[in-house]
Amino acid sequence: MPKTIVIPVTLDTKGEETKYIKDEIERKGHNTIVIDVGVLGEPLIKADITREEVAQAGGSSLRELVEAAEKGADRTEGTNVMISGVQKIVEELHSAGKLDGIISLGGSTGAALGTSAMSVLPIGIPKLMVSTGFELQFVGHKDIAMMQTPADILGLNSVMRKTLACAAGAIVGMVEAEVRGPIKPLVGITALGVTTPAVMRIKPLLEERGYDLIAFHTDTQVLDELVQEGRISGIIDLTTFEVMIPLTYHLPEELAEGRLRPAGEKGLPQVIVPGGLDMLILTGTKETVPPEYKDRVLHVHGPDRVLARTTKEEVGKAARILAERANRATGPVAIVIPLRGFSAVDQEGQHFYDPEADGAFAQVVKGIVKEGVEIVEVDAHINDDEFAKRVVDTYDRITAR
Amino acid sequence: MPKTIVIPVTLDTKGEETKYIKDEIERKGHNTIVIDVGVLGEPLIKADITREEVAQAGGSSLRELVEAAEKGADRTEGTNVMISGVQKIVEELHSAGKLDGIISLGGSTGAALGTSAMSVLPIGIPKLMVSTGFELQFVGHKDIAMMQTPADILGLNSVMRKTLACAAGAIVGMVEAEVRGPIKPLVGITALGVTTPAVMRIKPLLEERGYDLIAFHTDTQVLDELVQEGRISGIIDLTTFEVMIPLTYHLPEELAEGRLRPAGEKGLPQVIVPGGLDMLILTGTKETVPPEYKDRVLHVHGPDRVLARTTKEEVGKAARILAERANRATGPVAIVIPLRGFSAVDQEGQHFYDPEADGAFAQVVKGIVKEGVEIVEVDAHINDDEFAKRVVDTYDRITAR
Repeated sequence: MPKTIVIPVTLDTKGEETKYIKDEIERKGHNTIVIDVGVLGEPLIKADITREEVAQAGGSSLRELVEAAEKGADRTEGTNVMISGVQKIVEELHSAGKLDGIISLGGSTGAALGTSAMSVLPIGIPKLMVSTGFELQFVGHKDIAMMQTPADILGLNSVMRKTLACAAGAIVGMVEAEVRGPIKPLVGITALGVTTPAVMRIKPLLEERGYDLIAFHTDTQVLDELVQEGRISGIIDLTTFEVMIPLTYHLPEELAEGRLRPAGEKGLPQVIVPGGLDMLILTGTKETVPPEYKDRVLHVHGPDRVLARTTKEEVGKAARILAERANRATGPVAIVIPLRGFSAVDQEGQHFYDPEADGAFAQVVKGIVKEGVEIVEVDAHINDDEFAKRVVDTYDRITAR
Repeated sequence: MPKTIVIPVTLDTKGEETKYIKDEIERKGHNTIVIDVGVLGEPLIKADITREEVAQAGGSSLRELVEAAEKGADRTEGTNVMISGVQKIVEELHSAGKLDGIISLGGSTGAALGTSAMSVLPIGIPKLMVSTGFELQFVGHKDIAMMQTPADILGLNSVMRKTLACAAGAIVGMVEAEVRGPIKPLVGITALGVTTPAVMRIKPLLEERGYDLIAFHTDTQVLDELVQEGRISGIIDLTTFEVMIPLTYHLPEELAEGRLRPAGEKGLPQVIVPGGLDMLILTGTKETVPPEYKDRVLHVHGPDRVLARTTKEEVGKAARILAERANRATGPVAIVIPLRGFSAVDQEGQHFYDPEADGAFAQVVKGIVKEGVEIVEVDAHINDDEFAKRVVDTYDRITAR
């Protein structure tokens, strides 16, 4: 079945290359929608959605943008209008079922425009940016693929024809991709290197019970997004250490309180574990540790990572925030606590072993959680078999409620 | 015709995902060669080229690597052996016509291994790295495409199956890409924003004469590589400003002397122009300009770019280096000099207008170049129509020699 591939580009500078990609895609039996996001110059080929329409969707008019540019306005102002406009149009095309994939090409302004357009699309929709150089901020947390061109995008030649043919082939291959394999309920789990052994133990146990596991290191933005899209059936928030960052860096507590909030609002089953609450992750070496952490127990984790032991007070604060999140949740929640340590480095005999500080967690949550929030204390370390088993049992039990 | 796609991966951790990609590629009618680059753990699927073979190609043995790791050796040592090994194997497969594309997947160690393997392949061979995070150093200057996974590569689930199917589709689409359009002799040209108007004027003139133009900003590594591979028919080194960097930053002069050296050694026709020799590009703002440039004429070029006017002495030094390069070249060479300025900012009336400093260029080259190196002085600015015409005339004339 033919698919539709959307191509947002600045047609005043990238007309020839866009036509090459468009023709290749169509030659393979798919449809294209070319969106012109240029402001100045003349479009070199005809757009399906014109720059006038993009400017209008962005809340301005092309004439206004051109006049402002002629009066010496900062180029970014016009770019921002076109970004809002193309984002709106791309969202509409996707909602209307008229977008199966997106490809863009350009230099740094073109890449900003192209990847902004991509960023509004759900994870899993094929997205390919072809650019003269990689800039990390354009990729963000989404599944945007980037292809670096060997030379400037400045007309066709034997080298660039090959690159553009590969890019067209890649996006076509992506939209034609068929997903094989069983679709099972997806349990989101959070991890760090220091809790990965626990994840590896939980994985087969969950699979035995008919779930698939999807793991996220450190960052939970994508997980939140998948929850919003209804693609996650439940959460094992095994590694809640992110909650520590605002607390120890004196950032607004809302940052910690916002963690995985959508799961609670959607009523997904949640198992919350104090994984990694024994540590704060600092960038740098022992010598560069900020003064306020200098006197703590420190642990060098890699050439550019030092861990600082968290205090009893900090663990308690984190416990309060997680307990309140549990109270607010509209679905079933359990807090499962490994009594013998929260990460690979606070096990008995390790640098961060500190039962008193860790103990604050159970103490605080017990005082705060409302009836119905189950608390399971396990006399094991987070990375022990026994703990994995209890987490999965608990998840399964609250899910059945 | 079926193609062969090579898959270097650490099979101890990425077996399941590799099998998924391999099966998808084969289902589309292509062949795969899986290379195991893991060191520890057990391979989860069978490799076509084993870790033992990779370690051996890397000048060690797997047993040595494992023993060293068990004795607590730094992980990077083993990784480096596997990198050398996989690079050698990948080069051999390519030379033997057994590699049409390459795909790899992994976290940061896996991405280092995968992209190292890719980096030995010529430009134009499809290369796709699937990784949990982008790290710029892995991309380098090559045409490596990167696809970010939304979640950890830690087993299959509905989200990751989609990502892996897209990745397999992309590499298949890339190896199946057919290049359309005429194959014309390719003239490499160097550019900066401040000389791009000249490139835009030269482009149609070259095309009229049956050439295709390929442009490079700032960096000439890829151009050198294309020259080495015999894919470039001649050079218009329009923007030689790179020569300035070692001279003004007191780096070894060989860096400047090495610029586009392969073109001279291969005997390609070369037109050399002092484009951009009026400036040194500094990162930062006027406030952060290093003390030695503080007293120069400065020009703010963007939020993070300040240009400093080069001195007569520096222009003269650059002239000497370029003249010596011309003398060493085994092919026809001409030096074409725009007498009214070397970039958009040293034209009469602009900040960097300085005929005396610019004048050093012609003066020095005339005293150095040997007979046979043509010097063409044009009473025009580099971005003028007249100059573009003279550059193309000169290129055409020396090529016909």
